[in-house]
Amino acid sequence: MDKQKLYVIKIGGSLIDNQETLMNFLEQFASINALKILVHGGGKLASDLAVELNVPQQMTDGRRITNEETLDIVTMVYAGKINKKIVAKLQNFNCNAIGFSGADGNLIKSEKRSVSNVDYGFVGDVDSKSVNVDLLQKFLELQLSPVFSAITHDQKGDLLNTNADSVASVLAQALSQNYDVELLYCFDKDGVLEDVVNPDSAVKMLNFAKYEQLRSENKLHQGILPKLTNAFQAKENNVNKVVLHNETKLQNQINHQNEGTEIIL
Amino acid sequence: MDKQKLYVIKIGGSLIDNQETLMNFLEQFASINALKILVHGGGKLASDLAVELNVPQQMTDGRRITNEETLDIVTMVYAGKINKKIVAKLQNFNCNAIGFSGADGNLIKSEKRSVSNVDYGFVGDVDSKSVNVDLLQKFLELQLSPVFSAITHDQKGDLLNTNADSVASVLAQALSQNYDVELLYCFDKDGVLEDVVNPDSAVKMLNFAKYEQLRSENKLHQGILPKLTNAFQAKENNVNKVVLHNETKLQNQINHQNEGTEIIL
Repeated sequence: MDKQKLYVIKIGGSLIDNQETLMNFLEQFASINALKILVHGGGKLASDLAVELNVPQQMTDGRRITNEETLDIVTMVYAGKINKKIVAKLQNFNCNAIGFSGADGNLIKSEKRSVSNVDYGFVGDVDSKSVNVDLLQKFLELQLSPVFSAITHDQKGDLLNTNADSVASVLAQALSQNYDVELLYCFDKDGVLEDVVNPDSAVKMLNFAKYEQLRSENKLHQGILPKLTNAFQAKENNVNKVVLHNETKLQNQINHQNEGTEIIL
Repeated sequence: MDKQKLYVIKIGGSLIDNQETLMNFLEQFASINALKILVHGGGKLASDLAVELNVPQQMTDGRRITNEETLDIVTMVYAGKINKKIVAKLQNFNCNAIGFSGADGNLIKSEKRSVSNVDYGFVGDVDSKSVNVDLLQKFLELQLSPVFSAITHDQKGDLLNTNADSVASVLAQALSQNYDVELLYCFDKDGVLEDVVNPDSAVKMLNFAKYEQLRSENKLHQGILPKLTNAFQAKENNVNKVVLHNETKLQNQINHQNEGTEIIL
């Protein structure tokens, strides 16, 4: 029997920080007539709250050093405010959304990052074995649309801050056992730009050789590197289709499949 | 066929504000060998955060006036920090907990309280028809233990702050259709005290006449009135057993059934 289609869709800060484009996106997401999972990052809200609460934030290589106070902040903002607002809005658009952290139902466990040069604190790393596929499948069979914040847990009682691009990638990988998965990274560009200063220079198809070439020529926007690492990892691990595209054009991607940059091997 | 036993257990601020008694309680909760649902309030944490963020809080008759900023605070604290920490700890105690707001899976919808003398803002009221029994039953059949914060939604896209005692009561009422429900209100006293200054004066059984008598004699602790209203409402609506007891003695209540004050008609 053919596998059922499942979209795993990741959205990030640029969308979450803009109420109007977020609502527009959620309406498009709700209208997808297929199984679907949403994974969201946090945007500026966590950093803003940290400033208000006088909790200094330290970033290393774009990752947030997560001490106990910062873990509380990201849990409140990602798993609380953002996650529940998205779920309530999707319910209004007649999508039976259900919000999760990785601790809920033990859906995504992670490994606390070991201390080498840097102690990242309460930061967890995931792989495709992190995902509770059986339970997620039960939820999908109930026609629920899971909405994940990128807070996971170590099964020892601690929550861990996790990269949302990685969460989307491992969900897509793990669920590819049972579904025809399309992984969509939605962001504020039309795809992977061949020339970072030219917004119209998105490449249609990106294979690993081309990616290495663009990277070695320093042509890629810094922020896209972890997204591409996760995108290639998904493609290498049996995810049927992986696309990076503009967050304002979800419906075009779903209906016509011709947006953004498709990752190929 | 006999209905399956289901515990609906409410915990409040005194427990949540004390890390050690909370851990002790959660270990007892995890060890209950029956279907179980936990409902938690918020404790002082939301008020503390409001102070830190300079969001003035206004209480009327013990209820929090909930403007948009305050709704964000309670959503972050109740549905985020407290809910996810409880779930992660229960996972560590081998209980497959899954945290919910009422928006998730449309599990609990509420009606925004209409403005009469007081505009409570984003405050929602629930009744037994608010509960999505079918979906909750599916989760219980999967051996999941739902953990509810008292944030609900109006199905029109807004989250609503809801009384946690009421949430526990309506969950117990609605699920009594299909389960043999025991509703436990856990708090920091040994039960309903006949003499508020004597901690050893808990009554074993409380019927409505006795309750009215104690109330008219001003013998009841103010904070217990809404709990008792919800407790009697549950008992009147087919909840098999309703007990108010000491949060440190859950296991005794489960094993020996002789703790606290039982509500009778």
